[in-house]
Amino acid sequence: MNTPSVGERKTQRVRIRDDFWNGYTELVRNTVIPYQWEALNDLIEGAEPSYAIRNFRIAAGLQEGEFGGMVFQDSDLAKWLEAVGYSLGSHPDPELERIADEAIDLIGQAQQDDGYINTYFTIKEPDKRWTNLVDAHELYCAGHLIEAAVAYYHGTGKRKLLDIVCRFADYMDSIFGPEPGKLKGYCGHQEIELALVKLYETTGENRYLKLSQYFIDERGRQPSYFVEEWERRGRTSHWSQGTTPSPNLAYHQAHLPVREQSVAVGHAVRAVYMYTAMADLARLTGDAELRAACERLWSNIARKQLYITGGIGSTHHGEAFSFDYDLPNDTVYAETCASIGLIFFARRMLQLEAKSEYADVMERALYNNVLGSMSKDGKHFFYVNPLEVWPEASEKNPGRRHVKPVRQKWFGCSCCPPNVARLLSSLDEYIYGASPADSRIYVHLYIGSEAEFELAGGAKVGLTQQSKLPWDGRVCFKVSLAAGGGQAATSSAAGANGGQATAAFTLALRVPGWFQSGQPALRVNGLPVDYRLENGYALVERTWTDGDEAEWELPLETKLIAARPEIRADAGKVAIQRGPLVYCLEEADNFAPLASAAVNVGAAPSERYDEELLGGCVVIELDGTTVDLEAWPDSAGDGYGTPYAPYRPLAKPTRLTAVPYYLWGNREPGEMSVWIRTAQI
Amino acid sequence: MNTPSVGERKTQRVRIRDDFWNGYTELVRNTVIPYQWEALNDLIEGAEPSYAIRNFRIAAGLQEGEFGGMVFQDSDLAKWLEAVGYSLGSHPDPELERIADEAIDLIGQAQQDDGYINTYFTIKEPDKRWTNLVDAHELYCAGHLIEAAVAYYHGTGKRKLLDIVCRFADYMDSIFGPEPGKLKGYCGHQEIELALVKLYETTGENRYLKLSQYFIDERGRQPSYFVEEWERRGRTSHWSQGTTPSPNLAYHQAHLPVREQSVAVGHAVRAVYMYTAMADLARLTGDAELRAACERLWSNIARKQLYITGGIGSTHHGEAFSFDYDLPNDTVYAETCASIGLIFFARRMLQLEAKSEYADVMERALYNNVLGSMSKDGKHFFYVNPLEVWPEASEKNPGRRHVKPVRQKWFGCSCCPPNVARLLSSLDEYIYGASPADSRIYVHLYIGSEAEFELAGGAKVGLTQQSKLPWDGRVCFKVSLAAGGGQAATSSAAGANGGQATAAFTLALRVPGWFQSGQPALRVNGLPVDYRLENGYALVERTWTDGDEAEWELPLETKLIAARPEIRADAGKVAIQRGPLVYCLEEADNFAPLASAAVNVGAAPSERYDEELLGGCVVIELDGTTVDLEAWPDSAGDGYGTPYAPYRPLAKPTRLTAVPYYLWGNREPGEMSVWIRTAQI
Repeated sequence: MNTPSVGERKTQRVRIRDDFWNGYTELVRNTVIPYQWEALNDLIEGAEPSYAIRNFRIAAGLQEGEFGGMVFQDSDLAKWLEAVGYSLGSHPDPELERIADEAIDLIGQAQQDDGYINTYFTIKEPDKRWTNLVDAHELYCAGHLIEAAVAYYHGTGKRKLLDIVCRFADYMDSIFGPEPGKLKGYCGHQEIELALVKLYETTGENRYLKLSQYFIDERGRQPSYFVEEWERRGRTSHWSQGTTPSPNLAYHQAHLPVREQSVAVGHAVRAVYMYTAMADLARLTGDAELRAACERLWSNIARKQLYITGGIGSTHHGEAFSFDYDLPNDTVYAETCASIGLIFFARRMLQLEAKSEYADVMERALYNNVLGSMSKDGKHFFYVNPLEVWPEASEKNPGRRHVKPVRQKWFGCSCCPPNVARLLSSLDEYIYGASPADSRIYVHLYIGSEAEFELAGGAKVGLTQQSKLPWDGRVCFKVSLAAGGGQAATSSAAGANGGQATAAFTLALRVPGWFQSGQPALRVNGLPVDYRLENGYALVERTWTDGDEAEWELPLETKLIAARPEIRADAGKVAIQRGPLVYCLEEADNFAPLASAAVNVGAAPSERYDEELLGGCVVIELDGTTVDLEAWPDSAGDGYGTPYAPYRPLAKPTRLTAVPYYLWGNREPGEMSVWIRTAQI
Repeated sequence: MNTPSVGERKTQRVRIRDDFWNGYTELVRNTVIPYQWEALNDLIEGAEPSYAIRNFRIAAGLQEGEFGGMVFQDSDLAKWLEAVGYSLGSHPDPELERIADEAIDLIGQAQQDDGYINTYFTIKEPDKRWTNLVDAHELYCAGHLIEAAVAYYHGTGKRKLLDIVCRFADYMDSIFGPEPGKLKGYCGHQEIELALVKLYETTGENRYLKLSQYFIDERGRQPSYFVEEWERRGRTSHWSQGTTPSPNLAYHQAHLPVREQSVAVGHAVRAVYMYTAMADLARLTGDAELRAACERLWSNIARKQLYITGGIGSTHHGEAFSFDYDLPNDTVYAETCASIGLIFFARRMLQLEAKSEYADVMERALYNNVLGSMSKDGKHFFYVNPLEVWPEASEKNPGRRHVKPVRQKWFGCSCCPPNVARLLSSLDEYIYGASPADSRIYVHLYIGSEAEFELAGGAKVGLTQQSKLPWDGRVCFKVSLAAGGGQAATSSAAGANGGQATAAFTLALRVPGWFQSGQPALRVNGLPVDYRLENGYALVERTWTDGDEAEWELPLETKLIAARPEIRADAGKVAIQRGPLVYCLEEADNFAPLASAAVNVGAAPSERYDEELLGGCVVIELDGTTVDLEAWPDSAGDGYGTPYAPYRPLAKPTRLTAVPYYLWGNREPGEMSVWIRTAQI
């Protein structure tokens, strides 16, 4: 259904055919997208109004009224349209397309004569455009509109929104840049940078790439634009009354020129959106310094600031990174949007260089933090994704109040749910990587799908992937090569074998980080095949024949995982992982307090598929211990009078039951813990 | 040096003679009190001005200017005068007395014609008296002035400040009360209630007791005075601009009538100051319902909301209690003032009924949380007393920023340092309890001292206590009874034994909660003596002869202590305690990360007195394990790419060194931990 792009030559087309993931993409299509449309139109009873559509109607002159919601409210409509674009690309739906077209018409009507679009400033402060880049999200909202336009264009072939955002981008290009008279600014919430790259790749218009590069290059230079702008405003902020302190530059990743940054700091979503654009630019411009910065920042996050669930951002103060190895499980933030941004970043790093560690982190974030953020009904979401929950503490200790023990209803103003929707409805883009120049097809994620690749010289390769992950690790591929005609192997590397079409290319299969038992076995047409490893990928280089089948064996073993000792919060504890899934203990299957649980590291865990539990999942049971509460000296009778008494062993054997982390919190609220003490070290 | 009180008959006079504690009382006398006087006069370079004296001068019309500092700034001068009063009582110092007298003259000059004293309202909002009881601390400041007056009167015999505060109290009595036309209010920060009891006990004036009782009785009734007052003010607060939400009644312990309260909630200092007054009133009025509330609240704190160090208040949000068993070690508050207030409360509970658990908690808070708050130089203090410190987290994780790894300089506006000063300079009041009616002398704390008691009928008993706690547990008592004359045994229970004076009384020695080896041995004049136990006290009932010596053996053994399993933060961990002292691991003696340390619960700890270390202390060494950091798979080379890898044992033996908690943080900033993982459970 994808329409050929204007600029970028699409080298792959992918359609997900996967029991596990189609459930989610259908949920997004059938529930999340319609539900969000109602939210955008203030039709959800008991929910705060979104005002998003209403704001556009007022800005378009179709309705009287005041602006409502947050200053970045426009981005909710944009993210919805982006998700719709992806969805229509894989599943045409005339009624949904009609609704979306009307929304696009409305955006067009709200566009100002000079191309500007932003309902907050149009309605409320028309003379204050671009005076508060640090707080006001103007370029951020523009970026989301651009992403929506690109997705909608690819999904439907319709140019209207693309033309709208090109006019807007042309206008922004006239405002920002190094030339005299232009503003030397950049946005307080990065997003425009990655969006302009998409616009460049879709339209081929180099100006958009340059503008993205300008925003990246300018950021963090001294004197700080944010500080100067704040001085010009009279030292005010959008977020509070009166004069305010100077902007926190690190929060906005504007404390240093981006090429000098090595440690992920500040607001986590802003950070990973920026790194995503940096990686894009490094790839498209060959900027080695920018690439090196991306590699340093990646390495810092992945090695020192990443939760085992793929969450990032250790503190709710500023929804931010804190510092290396500071990964508290209970006061954690690990925002859903931040993990989604990390997935964006990982994908761009894979485009720069196919290294399995990028895909490992992408998979980790996807199967755990991101998937766990959404309820089974698609209408409830976690913004914060904790690794340890004590519901009473969430209620009564203010330092843990941001950690919710149950997913929240999707309210009008919200960032995470529409981000989940756009990620899941574009998941096809994350599975493969094609490297036409050296005839390589990379498989980053094992998600059942039908894909078509165009290799150098135009040779077309069809690939069907069958996967039962995350429950079973056997993955099968079938190659389709048409002799002559549509999928003809026309390159020098392609030919025919006894009448059957053939093509020489390399199938590069990721060896997942969670596979720990030597090299996975590969069979082609039933026979074992050797391969060489490069950057964590098994390179299967051969002349493939139409109908060839490859079987890739990735046995899923339950592993107890430890954290580096520098991570204080996990000292003396293990997590449970099986394939890409991190597990957790829930009170519902075990007991409270869960802190009394300890796992016997010497015993073999048992696994069973329970089709009744939580919609069906592999449950893991382990030998462990709990504390015999009855054996604790009675504080009323023994004279201690406090909850402290001389140590004596109180452990008694128990069986612990772990469920996949992504399914937690779908029963009665209770304690949950990913990290479990070891009964022996 | 104490002058007989007007109302209360003093039944004991105590002078501390103790190597350990005299160091502290001298520090307070020689350093803390003079240093604070400079602070009150804005003479400390580099410190924020206090404005306290300056405010009184302006209010007295001696100087022009604006009010400076916090709305409760007057209380700093009051707390200083209170400490001076205690100090002069045990150590006359004419120069200090002259300075204090001048300060008292100044207070007199700042007193308004109607008796009112409060420099904030006098200078800044003279027409707003009593309009914001919930925020403005007027009655709180009054309470501290009263406590100062009582202490100064007992310490010097001078009535001037006492007369000043009596006039003020008479005025307050005309403003507040159940009678028509009076305000039905009470203070947002409890303090006046316990102060009025002291004023009653000193003056014998029943009106003051009744006013205290009124404040206690009225609190928490519906409709809420705080809410009504807030409505009358136009829904404003002292602490922020514009209209504000309705006051948080639980924060002020005004959510329920006090007799219905069972769980300690809200701001911890406010809470324990109130409970102190409640226990006073229950004792003086025989109010059984009030006493039952005190017992419930005590029990809730001691059994469910108490840190092992005697700290209370689990969260810095509102410096408050959170909920039962929520005792995080890293995000802890455990304010110094709250533990001091807990000591006040414990002392009142002991006056209600001598039960060793009250004294146990008093001792725990004193030797650990309170003593640890002050540096060796008497000029640096912790307000927050954590049980686990990671200095980098204190700096970089905003949720732990309130936890300081080094004691802070005593700045102008501060509550904890003067509170420490007044507690330590009145420590003599906490050691003994006399129960003249049944001729009992209770020893609550083992602190070397010379004491004199007056039993029923006027018999006087001298008691000299020699103690080497906290380092050695052998405590000796010597009884002095004068035949005839000053210390004559004049009661029916007293007599003469072969020319030597005798007296029949019961020496009631507390069996500390930390003593775990059966019953302590007691010898009188070298011979073993039996005793019976009552409420945790050894009752030595006999006719004592002048010169009798009692030896009380309390061997100090190092114990590993566990917490109830409901305390999630301490699961799988032990603390180290020796006698009253809780120990901790510091990075300086061990390694980082300290979370890698685990203690071998099976091995015997060794103890040694190190006279070089931290001014001399008993150091405890234990066998344990740490993690072999070298053995961790190199993340650069092994393909994990994250700080997570399959578990394998990495523990290696090590020797752990623990120092007394109260001495932590006196070296280079580093990690500290009270709770240590167990190497086996």
